[in-house]
Amino acid sequence: MKNLLLLSNSTNFGEPYLGWPQEHLAKFYEGVNEVLFIPFAGFALGYDKYEDAVKKAFSKFNKKVVSVHQFENMQEAAKNAEAFAVGGGNTFYLFQQMHHLGLMEIIKQKAENGTPFAGWSAGSNIACPSLKTSNDMPIVEPKSFDGLGLINFQINPHYTNKTIDGHGGETRDQRIEEFIAANQKTAVLGLPEACLLRVEKNNLTFIGNSSAKLFLYGNEPKFVEPNSNLSYLL
Amino acid sequence: MKNLLLLSNSTNFGEPYLGWPQEHLAKFYEGVNEVLFIPFAGFALGYDKYEDAVKKAFSKFNKKVVSVHQFENMQEAAKNAEAFAVGGGNTFYLFQQMHHLGLMEIIKQKAENGTPFAGWSAGSNIACPSLKTSNDMPIVEPKSFDGLGLINFQINPHYTNKTIDGHGGETRDQRIEEFIAANQKTAVLGLPEACLLRVEKNNLTFIGNSSAKLFLYGNEPKFVEPNSNLSYLL
Repeated sequence: MKNLLLLSNSTNFGEPYLGWPQEHLAKFYEGVNEVLFIPFAGFALGYDKYEDAVKKAFSKFNKKVVSVHQFENMQEAAKNAEAFAVGGGNTFYLFQQMHHLGLMEIIKQKAENGTPFAGWSAGSNIACPSLKTSNDMPIVEPKSFDGLGLINFQINPHYTNKTIDGHGGETRDQRIEEFIAANQKTAVLGLPEACLLRVEKNNLTFIGNSSAKLFLYGNEPKFVEPNSNLSYLL
Repeated sequence: MKNLLLLSNSTNFGEPYLGWPQEHLAKFYEGVNEVLFIPFAGFALGYDKYEDAVKKAFSKFNKKVVSVHQFENMQEAAKNAEAFAVGGGNTFYLFQQMHHLGLMEIIKQKAENGTPFAGWSAGSNIACPSLKTSNDMPIVEPKSFDGLGLINFQINPHYTNKTIDGHGGETRDQRIEEFIAANQKTAVLGLPEACLLRVEKNNLTFIGNSSAKLFLYGNEPKFVEPNSNLSYLL
């Protein structure tokens, strides 16, 4: 019954906000009257400003958006939502607020029963079993690292294995290899920018212009080509 | 009474392991017979291999090292230690193990009472109030984000504001700005590679060949020159 659109990122470097995924979002939300936006990852920008930016982007395909932070009873707003959009930003802040506000279970149940759920960056990460493949700084301590578990593997959003010249920090691949060493049953899909995953019922398709990279403990990482069917990962 | 050596990183890109800080470590551990090494951040490498690498590096200045994982009673080993060295790697794994094994309070008390404590990368981060300025992937969920609190501000190790060309993820400065927005009373010092902090009693000196960057909520970030006295941050 699931109906998910999980984007690596909102915006390609130097392009307009939510530019590249616009056509995908427009198609995904077809028939939906109003989308409930979850802004918590964007606390540094401010929820009102974040809502405005998303409203403006969604207006390009004539979709109404309201942010959950505008409601006095946010749980009720989530229960009544026709569709969800979870914005990117800081993954730890998003998880902290979602757990704190009691929104995890409500959104999980609705999304499992077919309510359209789209997310980008941190918003894709929260669809995973946990936040353990986030790239973000752990600026706050969430009550739990548990995600919505709408998929059974981890996305690494903004995936790239490029490094900063002359810098000694770990590469992304080294980080993901550490994750699978510590979590040997969980696969990780490195999802490059401008790529997405589309889940419809029991079908998972990878869409993008570049290869994703799949990591599973005990196997060599392998590249996944655009338009691959990855339903076996669900 | 504190006697701390907090290094941004173990190794500059392309250089030998623990090469650049060798002379600092040699001087710091003068008069110490044997250093107790804390290897937990290096779980992906394996504790035995990590211990061997550190033994080899420390042998260049004739310092004996033994890793805490070799002891059946690790708490006892920590209580008896003459000096500590906490290695880098994955900060979350380090914090998880240190809390789980009951080593935090023992090491904190000893380090506050003058037992020499050196750390690099994740090992510097654990001297801070929390792990909230780590650059690492949160591959495991520690019981707590609390650090040893040997200093009252956060280090961001491997500090750089360089970015990967054409990549849309947050810059390091954006991440640290998010941290200070969420933790307004806590300063962050971005410590570039090949730099260190030396704490002797109530004196804090920044040592290195490039500028560090200090972030405090409500202020413009400011550069700190090598050999600056930063005792006011303690």
